[in-house]
Amino acid sequence: MEFISVEIASRLINQYPLILEEEKIPFEKSTGRVLREDILADRDFPPFDRVTMDGIALHSSSYLNGQRVFPVQGIQYAGEPALTLENENMCIEVMTGTPLPKGADTVIRYEDLEIAEGNATLQDTLPVKRNIHGLGSDRRKGEIILKKGAPITVPDLAILATVGKPEVLVSRLPSVAIVTSGDELVEVHQTPLPHQIRRSNVYAIAELIKPFSNMVSHSHIADNLDATTSELKLLLEKHDVIILSGGVSAGKKDFIPQALENIGFEMVFHKIAQRPGKPMWFGRKENKLVFALPGNPVSAFMCAVRYVKPWFQECLGLAEKPEYAFLGKNVNFKPNLSYFMQVKLQNEKGKLIALPEEGHGSGDLANLSNADAFLELPQKEESLYEKGEVFRVWRF
Amino acid sequence: MEFISVEIASRLINQYPLILEEEKIPFEKSTGRVLREDILADRDFPPFDRVTMDGIALHSSSYLNGQRVFPVQGIQYAGEPALTLENENMCIEVMTGTPLPKGADTVIRYEDLEIAEGNATLQDTLPVKRNIHGLGSDRRKGEIILKKGAPITVPDLAILATVGKPEVLVSRLPSVAIVTSGDELVEVHQTPLPHQIRRSNVYAIAELIKPFSNMVSHSHIADNLDATTSELKLLLEKHDVIILSGGVSAGKKDFIPQALENIGFEMVFHKIAQRPGKPMWFGRKENKLVFALPGNPVSAFMCAVRYVKPWFQECLGLAEKPEYAFLGKNVNFKPNLSYFMQVKLQNEKGKLIALPEEGHGSGDLANLSNADAFLELPQKEESLYEKGEVFRVWRF
Repeated sequence: MEFISVEIASRLINQYPLILEEEKIPFEKSTGRVLREDILADRDFPPFDRVTMDGIALHSSSYLNGQRVFPVQGIQYAGEPALTLENENMCIEVMTGTPLPKGADTVIRYEDLEIAEGNATLQDTLPVKRNIHGLGSDRRKGEIILKKGAPITVPDLAILATVGKPEVLVSRLPSVAIVTSGDELVEVHQTPLPHQIRRSNVYAIAELIKPFSNMVSHSHIADNLDATTSELKLLLEKHDVIILSGGVSAGKKDFIPQALENIGFEMVFHKIAQRPGKPMWFGRKENKLVFALPGNPVSAFMCAVRYVKPWFQECLGLAEKPEYAFLGKNVNFKPNLSYFMQVKLQNEKGKLIALPEEGHGSGDLANLSNADAFLELPQKEESLYEKGEVFRVWRF
Repeated sequence: MEFISVEIASRLINQYPLILEEEKIPFEKSTGRVLREDILADRDFPPFDRVTMDGIALHSSSYLNGQRVFPVQGIQYAGEPALTLENENMCIEVMTGTPLPKGADTVIRYEDLEIAEGNATLQDTLPVKRNIHGLGSDRRKGEIILKKGAPITVPDLAILATVGKPEVLVSRLPSVAIVTSGDELVEVHQTPLPHQIRRSNVYAIAELIKPFSNMVSHSHIADNLDATTSELKLLLEKHDVIILSGGVSAGKKDFIPQALENIGFEMVFHKIAQRPGKPMWFGRKENKLVFALPGNPVSAFMCAVRYVKPWFQECLGLAEKPEYAFLGKNVNFKPNLSYFMQVKLQNEKGKLIALPEEGHGSGDLANLSNADAFLELPQKEESLYEKGEVFRVWRF
């Protein structure tokens, strides 16, 4: 099969979104989730004429008519019902956040008056500003404050609390299994023999999709067609999505594509014209999906950043707006492939600059630690990508 | 006391970092934490001459000397020790990721040969590329891969797994209590009376600092000097940092500064020349710190974004490089104060543009939901900030 382009691979994957049911969760844990209900103002906001200064509340016409000394009738505290001015010549002490006493329409701040022997004496030429955050001036009862389908942000937690939503209806997260294959792999706590290496891909990929997935199960499959087939069959009963790493090349023990066909999976594509990550395989069966990534840790991670994470975001309604950056220096890349180049991003006076992080070469896992994104240099005949050109950037 | 500038407030706060001990945690949970040990390569990487293509391994001199047909001696599988070429005229089938058989120095990919009856027949004019990722070519055993003091990134999880670090030494996180005051506040699940509102600030602030803090305890204090004093005293025995919201203005029941002085806290500053969030108070006693934020939800949140979160990042060694954005339209702001303007950020061909999100006004909590950052417009005499000017931006 011919390689397909990055763009087509990406478009094909997004043709298979999951349909996710809704679930109710505690609002404190809802950041990053997607609303499945409109959130309405349960009352007017502010719910009362809210004082915005510490000072006294009075009736402005008295001041405008020349009155300068106002007997202090009492103190309006927060948490107590609004007091009522006995008459238009009195005043009540108020504080930021308290309700405006009934009969008053203006607050004069302490800096503009003196209080002695129960009387507030005001300066002579005050601009009469209300200093009130009026009842319902932000939102009216019944108005939609947060829309169905919107991602819940950090400040939204305060909004949900304000309108009294201890629980909130959101899309459930897809259930995911991450599976490695490759007989050369041993566990993190084990000491590998010279021809073995430790299992590592799963951890970074699991962390990358953690905000978008549920009950990530990790497992490892031996390089054996029967074992691979039966293990994948089991995992697919319990999960919406399987992410595999390894076993997708043309090697003698690359059983993954065959095993998936055995259990009825349809291949959507195999191999993308890109570096790294060429051998990626993607397939589906009904509403189950499999991303089979290469075994090389850098390749697997890049494919996860470019295809897997965006697919989760898309399904959930969390798709991010594309980000672009200026290439920080000339780059030569000969193969006629898209190149996912590791970069460090810098914000220079409002411009995003992407500096290549070549280090020990792009196959070097440790090198990824210095990068914070990759720049997607599109496939083209010529090998030069010029400093100052703008390309799409993918943070990780 | 006079207002101080945003810059001075920020500098004063950063004069009081916490000294944080180290702790050992499972590597899978270490993203975003800060290393307190160097992570070394425990072996050469790759640990063997690693084959990068599916094909056959042979000795290149035989091909260069004209040999085109190579008997296939066997198959090198991943997870098995490297085989040895019986002689320079033989070949061994190999796969991506397997060790290079001993005696071989080159891999020819399947696309460039045919295998039939136990012999591999090669094309005539192949460029002899090694297709080997050489032993130790990425990192040498003992070399530092991740540096003490560096934040642990998502790809670092794969690195920690690769070098066999199931546990990792990191800085412990500061222990934090978040406390609200204000007798007008009721809980999220309660129905407020007309003069009451629900407690909301804590949730957004807790979420904002969650990656940087431990065991966040939430509580509420009544507007009463004695109760405030004794409650704060108790909380300070158990936590490194207290974040308060409310009770810092000049109101009759704004007991927070007094209560903190009662238990021996030294005020570092009170009131900043900024909008919103003017009444913020900051103080310390030995190695305990208190951030006392205003009660208004928007003000409290902005102060947390501008001062509290950056302080945590600074203490932990996670300080981010400043980000800047172009102001997307002219803005008039008269008060001689720094203005934290809510904005929506857009990446337009590599340039970061900040568009003001004015909505129902900056005091409106629901408005924050549409913004994803604030632009810091510095205090100045003139009121005009011009489209195209570049200012510092703080994401939340």
